[in-house]
Amino acid sequence: MTITITAFESSPDRGRGLARDMRVRWALEEVGQPYACRLVSFEALKQPGHRRLNPFGQIPTLEEGDLALFESGAIILHIAGQHAGLLPAEANARARAIAWMFAALNSVEPPIVELSMAMIVERDRPWFAARLPMLQDRVRARLKALSAFLGEADWLDGGFSAADLLVVTVLRRLESSGLLPDYPNLVAYIARGEARPAYRRAFDAQLAVFAAASKGSG
Amino acid sequence: MTITITAFESSPDRGRGLARDMRVRWALEEVGQPYACRLVSFEALKQPGHRRLNPFGQIPTLEEGDLALFESGAIILHIAGQHAGLLPAEANARARAIAWMFAALNSVEPPIVELSMAMIVERDRPWFAARLPMLQDRVRARLKALSAFLGEADWLDGGFSAADLLVVTVLRRLESSGLLPDYPNLVAYIARGEARPAYRRAFDAQLAVFAAASKGSG
Repeated sequence: MTITITAFESSPDRGRGLARDMRVRWALEEVGQPYACRLVSFEALKQPGHRRLNPFGQIPTLEEGDLALFESGAIILHIAGQHAGLLPAEANARARAIAWMFAALNSVEPPIVELSMAMIVERDRPWFAARLPMLQDRVRARLKALSAFLGEADWLDGGFSAADLLVVTVLRRLESSGLLPDYPNLVAYIARGEARPAYRRAFDAQLAVFAAASKGSG
Repeated sequence: MTITITAFESSPDRGRGLARDMRVRWALEEVGQPYACRLVSFEALKQPGHRRLNPFGQIPTLEEGDLALFESGAIILHIAGQHAGLLPAEANARARAIAWMFAALNSVEPPIVELSMAMIVERDRPWFAARLPMLQDRVRARLKALSAFLGEADWLDGGFSAADLLVVTVLRRLESSGLLPDYPNLVAYIARGEARPAYRRAFDAQLAVFAAASKGSG
């Protein structure tokens, strides 16, 4: 059955693979599943047509036959349920990997988004400098715990899984924060994720969208 | 197999059912699964013993035989996989309900936590009043979309599911924000959740913990 996902027509990350379609592209590449990608403008995101796919007007979405899904975590869990290669088969290991998928999105990502948003939206406000250490400390608390848990391991729990895919993509949002170098094992962990052939293919696909859009507007 | 969860020894919400163990208690009550609860002090949360269960030093956790899990969303998904009553059996409806579980935790909860934290930690700071409308608007954007999606329905997608359980518990964190009354269908939705017998039993169980702790410290 054909899979169609959505992505930004013009991504604010300028093709650096930080938008959430990157996660879904990577997951589909890991399992070798071809997909089509429909690009959506910022204006169209807020229209009823797209809201029927994602009530919050965001990307990515997935359409596959009668099924329409939103939320990158749910889409990846759905893909992992249909194809081998993203979650362990053994029940307890699978449950633990799913716990890390939720942790990536509910414990690690929120303080990172809060910091990123402040750096974009509030950088010129008079309180920015006073609040920055608090926002950074919230992120550091997560990085410290994650770094301690990972230790010298390659991946979070045995082999590579959808949990690593989500944690790596969430951590990549910190690249311009200056916080990552304090955690060399996390820097190496991100690099291991980025070195996977499936990651490269997904990255190139989203970069091609940006390159085409730039050419069109240049 | 015996299920043991963890909860705060002394919850900062004073027994209002806003801590995340409430979600897991409610899910276990919905499926009629008895459980034990181990109370954890704030000091113990940060110690290696608890960090082995939850690397981020949070509650709740679940222990069941050889399995240890963290993240309320993952724990509830695990319970829903073992017992009928929390997710639809039909594959597409099940995938959609899981999408809403992720939406509750990754799209709806983060701006609510950001607002709540500011109201607790930054209330006395000189910038609080200037930032408040921005934080409220981020929450309102989610409430507006959620309200439009729910419409006149009782639950998000057909019958009650773990998605409703998570969205209701996330929305309850807004009770003191003053934002909910603008969305009467969401107020009614929360009340429908709170009226479920399983919710009541879970609420009473967490309130009993607070009452016992207060008695001990009084």
